[in-house]
Amino acid sequence: MIKGNFRYIFFDADDTLWQNEEYFREAEYRFAELLSAYGSKEDLINILTEKQEDNIPPFGYGSKTFMISMLDAAAEICGNGFDTRLYHGIKKIITDLAYHEFNLLDGVQETLEALSGKYILAVATKGDLVEQRTKYKESGLDRFFHHIEVLPNKSEEDYLEMARKLEIRPDEILMVGNAIKSDIAPVIAIGGTAIHIPYEVTWVHEIMEMPESDRIFEIKSIKDLPGLLL
Amino acid sequence: MIKGNFRYIFFDADDTLWQNEEYFREAEYRFAELLSAYGSKEDLINILTEKQEDNIPPFGYGSKTFMISMLDAAAEICGNGFDTRLYHGIKKIITDLAYHEFNLLDGVQETLEALSGKYILAVATKGDLVEQRTKYKESGLDRFFHHIEVLPNKSEEDYLEMARKLEIRPDEILMVGNAIKSDIAPVIAIGGTAIHIPYEVTWVHEIMEMPESDRIFEIKSIKDLPGLLL
Repeated sequence: MIKGNFRYIFFDADDTLWQNEEYFREAEYRFAELLSAYGSKEDLINILTEKQEDNIPPFGYGSKTFMISMLDAAAEICGNGFDTRLYHGIKKIITDLAYHEFNLLDGVQETLEALSGKYILAVATKGDLVEQRTKYKESGLDRFFHHIEVLPNKSEEDYLEMARKLEIRPDEILMVGNAIKSDIAPVIAIGGTAIHIPYEVTWVHEIMEMPESDRIFEIKSIKDLPGLLL
Repeated sequence: MIKGNFRYIFFDADDTLWQNEEYFREAEYRFAELLSAYGSKEDLINILTEKQEDNIPPFGYGSKTFMISMLDAAAEICGNGFDTRLYHGIKKIITDLAYHEFNLLDGVQETLEALSGKYILAVATKGDLVEQRTKYKESGLDRFFHHIEVLPNKSEEDYLEMARKLEIRPDEILMVGNAIKSDIAPVIAIGGTAIHIPYEVTWVHEIMEMPESDRIFEIKSIKDLPGLLL
């Protein structure tokens, strides 16, 4: 069992509470299909990935930035211009992505039910504000949570700012999530505790080696949380 | 002097702390210039405004949504397609908008200086998460503020959720801002108090009649705040 004086348990949302990464991969695949006359799937996706890396720093995470990256990629791939059919095709992919079907991960509901009342639970996610909050409402999980925080980057600075806002110390943070770069490493660096639940698909942007710390715990499924915390 | 047991004074940001609306109007104007071969400035801006109204509900506020609206409008205006020069022209307008020069409004710095220490000051803004937080950091005003909240819509529900998160009652909210629809009406509706500082330009999307309430105060300039509050 984990010992600590945690004021909040924060949960990452995408790929920790609900499916997400698959939908981005599907959108990528549909983009490559749409432009298949211009190159191999792999080449097209590589160009898209490059544009994403360029666009995330100025524009942030989420579907709208992904749309800008698709359009940047299409402008480069198609040369002189693109027809409105292609434009509307890309907008359709992005609208479907922003409003995809919603799937809670296995065990989430029971786990939150078991922990709520014993801890203050909150969501700490990154991405687009509107998309994240829409999913939060749609999930029906808001009844278990004190609130949701949408952070721009999940950097150390973002976590410190969140702690200041909530008037808690960084070592009172317990973070549960799938992404080492966003959910584990920065929380450990500021003195918090983290529980890692690996997800089957990891976005290339998030790949990072696990830091060494006795404040990191790894479990296979969110269902193992009550055993660790109650 | 205003009486009340305010836990926080929340400040709207765009057009209350710093200039904003002018930059959106300038972007609109540049869009119309770019497409001037296709119609009158007025017609082109009307189409853009229609697309904005369609896109704000699914995609939220901010420059990226404005880019999608410009592209939707261009696709409609140009018919079969648009060339990459036009695409890059629109992207440039949006990048300039997201990273425009930064101008604090007159009197902001001195007013915050006078109030800080006497009240807990916070920013409650809406718009794109990354853009709003970038401006907040760039402003250098973060030293006066406890934190920033970026709300998706500034609806009554958003303000209630913010109050729950901060563990304050709605009647402990004092909100200062320029937009009746976003800063005044919803705060009054949930039992808070509001100070209105009209701005010279109002976005058509925000126009609304002032509700009647003895919890609304109107001042000409942010410089009049200390007189009302200290």
